[in-house]
Amino acid sequence: MTRNSDAPLVVGLAGFGTVGGGLVRLLQENADIIKRRVGRDIRLKKVLVRTITKARAAQLPPGATLVTDPRSLTDDPEIDVLVELIGGIDHARDLIDRALDQGKHIVTANKALLAEEGLELFHKAARKKRILRYEASVAGAIPVVEALKASLTGNRIQSLMGILNGTSNYILSEMTSNGMEFDVALQQAQRLGYAEADPSLDIDGHDAAHKLILLIRLAYGVHYPYTALSVRGIRGLSAMDIRLAREFGYRIKLIAQVREALGGEKDQVRLEAGVFPALVYHKYLLARVGGVYNAVRVEANAAGALFFHGRGAGDLPTAGAVLGDLLAVARDERPNNTGFADKVLPKACIVPPEEWRSCYYVRVMVQDAPGVLRDLSGCMAAEGISMAQVIQKSGEGQGVPLVFMTHETSARAMRDALQRTMDSGLLKEPAVYLRVLGGE
Amino acid sequence: MTRNSDAPLVVGLAGFGTVGGGLVRLLQENADIIKRRVGRDIRLKKVLVRTITKARAAQLPPGATLVTDPRSLTDDPEIDVLVELIGGIDHARDLIDRALDQGKHIVTANKALLAEEGLELFHKAARKKRILRYEASVAGAIPVVEALKASLTGNRIQSLMGILNGTSNYILSEMTSNGMEFDVALQQAQRLGYAEADPSLDIDGHDAAHKLILLIRLAYGVHYPYTALSVRGIRGLSAMDIRLAREFGYRIKLIAQVREALGGEKDQVRLEAGVFPALVYHKYLLARVGGVYNAVRVEANAAGALFFHGRGAGDLPTAGAVLGDLLAVARDERPNNTGFADKVLPKACIVPPEEWRSCYYVRVMVQDAPGVLRDLSGCMAAEGISMAQVIQKSGEGQGVPLVFMTHETSARAMRDALQRTMDSGLLKEPAVYLRVLGGE
Repeated sequence: MTRNSDAPLVVGLAGFGTVGGGLVRLLQENADIIKRRVGRDIRLKKVLVRTITKARAAQLPPGATLVTDPRSLTDDPEIDVLVELIGGIDHARDLIDRALDQGKHIVTANKALLAEEGLELFHKAARKKRILRYEASVAGAIPVVEALKASLTGNRIQSLMGILNGTSNYILSEMTSNGMEFDVALQQAQRLGYAEADPSLDIDGHDAAHKLILLIRLAYGVHYPYTALSVRGIRGLSAMDIRLAREFGYRIKLIAQVREALGGEKDQVRLEAGVFPALVYHKYLLARVGGVYNAVRVEANAAGALFFHGRGAGDLPTAGAVLGDLLAVARDERPNNTGFADKVLPKACIVPPEEWRSCYYVRVMVQDAPGVLRDLSGCMAAEGISMAQVIQKSGEGQGVPLVFMTHETSARAMRDALQRTMDSGLLKEPAVYLRVLGGE
Repeated sequence: MTRNSDAPLVVGLAGFGTVGGGLVRLLQENADIIKRRVGRDIRLKKVLVRTITKARAAQLPPGATLVTDPRSLTDDPEIDVLVELIGGIDHARDLIDRALDQGKHIVTANKALLAEEGLELFHKAARKKRILRYEASVAGAIPVVEALKASLTGNRIQSLMGILNGTSNYILSEMTSNGMEFDVALQQAQRLGYAEADPSLDIDGHDAAHKLILLIRLAYGVHYPYTALSVRGIRGLSAMDIRLAREFGYRIKLIAQVREALGGEKDQVRLEAGVFPALVYHKYLLARVGGVYNAVRVEANAAGALFFHGRGAGDLPTAGAVLGDLLAVARDERPNNTGFADKVLPKACIVPPEEWRSCYYVRVMVQDAPGVLRDLSGCMAAEGISMAQVIQKSGEGQGVPLVFMTHETSARAMRDALQRTMDSGLLKEPAVYLRVLGGE
């Protein structure tokens, strides 16, 4: 395990699905490049699977064997590094934990594990002086983990906004381009393999939330508990709101955001963080992110605005990120697992979601637009909210949409103003409201 | 100079201009972040300047002194790392050379030096086992050097396209948005401080060419001699072509490109590389890069297409990249200077520019459009070139533009076909022709 030797780096791989198969393919296809880059070969010795006999997309290289006993991998003294691609939490954690105990380095793509129970693994890796890398766990092929952990370390990160879930972005893109309703777009995504049979992890924002927790940790060096994160997904968004947002010049995107709150005390950074659908102005690069692509926009006090765009999932894009991590291990890089020197990361100081300030898009269905607009304005004004733009649609029957954009206000004021409209009997059904994002 | 000590990293800075001043500011403003990130302070000890008495934008921190003798910096045993920000070639090379001899690590933003005479410095750094970092030398705040050297190392890089010169991009953006002629836009850029009094380095493509040489080295691990690079700048581009390109749905950008040539022999990668103005389809992210921004698009065999966008110049964006490099030194990272294990990088195998294949935009000024179109088509067809789209403008007097886009052809065929049009007396003045880029 020392750099001075030109001996191959010996890898144990756990998981032989899409990404694992992609990694096995890349290790073979790019073998010459790998050798030129790091001066040694990477040798896959064992692949941990549940069933030996299942058919696989990728072929094992000569000398590699399938195993079903986790110990056969974690306890093999010849193996230098464990690549964990099985996903899920309990089994993966036990595997990594054992491998660290046995002195292995770790490369993983497991965002759920690192978000929900990562701290103990980072502590153990630090104690054992082992590398724990996870570039593939956020935004697939986009090297945002490395950017935050190394390139941008001299910066104070002011904000970070990402489109981190390709499934949701694909559904929203289809709803935007083709006017599809949510359910139809979801079914299409499922048919094409972009969404799971149970799509909740993606469309309800949990996957993006896991990734955001990792980005917060990298950007601010704090522990932000997963359960404390405000998360709202795209389920049930209507094609009507996507169409109306377009009329204002906006696209609706599922955004994962963290930013420093203004007006905090000097030595304690307060963070606003959450996952939510939001209106993004169509000229911003984030609004241009289509289909299953991912993107991250970082605003930092030296760099200014940086924007990264690339594939967020898929066999080779994800496997390429795993391979980049493996090559860092092969270079015998010093561990820089969290990007911070602190042994214990402090807990984040969290701004409650109701205090967040934002502009809002609000849509109500009304019969008598002029009358409702006057009374609505009254409810808004009573909470100190002023309207910036209004669109009234003409029409008859069940009601027509009345849409407005507000100036900046707090989530609490918005909630209270909308409650007022319900209490006063002004609206028959609750308003739809979404945050409107600034950017560049 | 060992990681185990928590002693400050001691820095000698050469050059106290815009970027040097930005670095001094950042070292103070972000001191707490730096300490948290790397567990030690960064202490600026000496700043090498030409004249002690000149007024400076930034104030020196306590304990730092201005010096005018280079040896006072390179030979100071307490200094761990030289930050070279003086620019130019001879003086900077001597300084870095001497500092390496004295066992210092190096951080530089000097693209001209590294492109034209970098190899010997890399060799010496390798012999001396010292870190030589240069993130700020390409695309300012965009961490593309690190991306190529670390994150993407498991990939075969298929192509790389960049907008690497902010001055040129600003001029082209103004010509596009405001219909300005080149000279007017250049003067405006000079007035705003975006262009030098002698703008040749920027507008004739040399600055982008220096950066491209570094990116080629990072992507392919080869030595591509600067003098062998095909370079064409934006001087004299006309507002008319920018306007006509728009009608086809394209923006004209100064592009630095390298790509693997198709059909080369298996174990020798042949490279097409050059700097040239080109038409970029308006829906591509590269076409959206406005003002002084920079961007890089990388196409790689695992990652797919990656796009990076950010500030390419300016005091803090550049200084932030320098600081990121300094923190890597502070972490006592192992040298990974070229991104390749090879001690000596092989020479690039170069595709001669006349063999490049591309689609073309061609504009000629004619009196009698229909007649000329027939004869022009004949000249093109004689070289195997077919037209994809034609725009004929109506008008009288001195002539009207006849514009067409071709299907893919070689630069040689295009040159020969246009020579034919001149030889046959068909055209009075040479055609304007520009490459048309694919991408996404």
